[in-house]
Amino acid sequence: MMFLATITIGLKEGMLDPEAKAISHALGNLGFPTDDIKTERVFLIRFDAADHRDAEEKARGMCERLLANPVIHHYEIEVRR
Amino acid sequence: MMFLATITIGLKEGMLDPEAKAISHALGNLGFPTDDIKTERVFLIRFDAADHRDAEEKARGMCERLLANPVIHHYEIEVRR
Repeated sequence: MMFLATITIGLKEGMLDPEAKAISHALGNLGFPTDDIKTERVFLIRFDAADHRDAEEKARGMCERLLANPVIHHYEIEVRR
Repeated sequence: MMFLATITIGLKEGMLDPEAKAISHALGNLGFPTDDIKTERVFLIRFDAADHRDAEEKARGMCERLLANPVIHHYEIEVRR
């Protein structure tokens, strides 16, 4: 059966986020001063799995094998039908 | 007072997403066939605003002036204290 995994990947606390820094700088120049910016990526992935548990395991495998770098990223997985 | 805006930016329906295509291909090669992949970016932005309405207006301004390209992106804004 088909499942939809929402995988959110962000940088671990303390990691430099040069994109956030560049955006903060640009927003300031446009008249939008900011106090803090974090960036995340979201992948919405539809795939076939035997059951909910199998879907979670597959989504975790996708993160660990490809989508996230465990040294610098944290990730969250939410699976639903 | 400080507000936190969660801004989610994705491609409009029908727009090509070459990153999603590349990920789909790579996941397939790793033994994770997928049916559909969408990618989104999330910006978590903390900034000062007079009230909730002012914060929403500023967040919308950030999207329209810098973060999103209205021709190809849709965006969602969620503001909280």
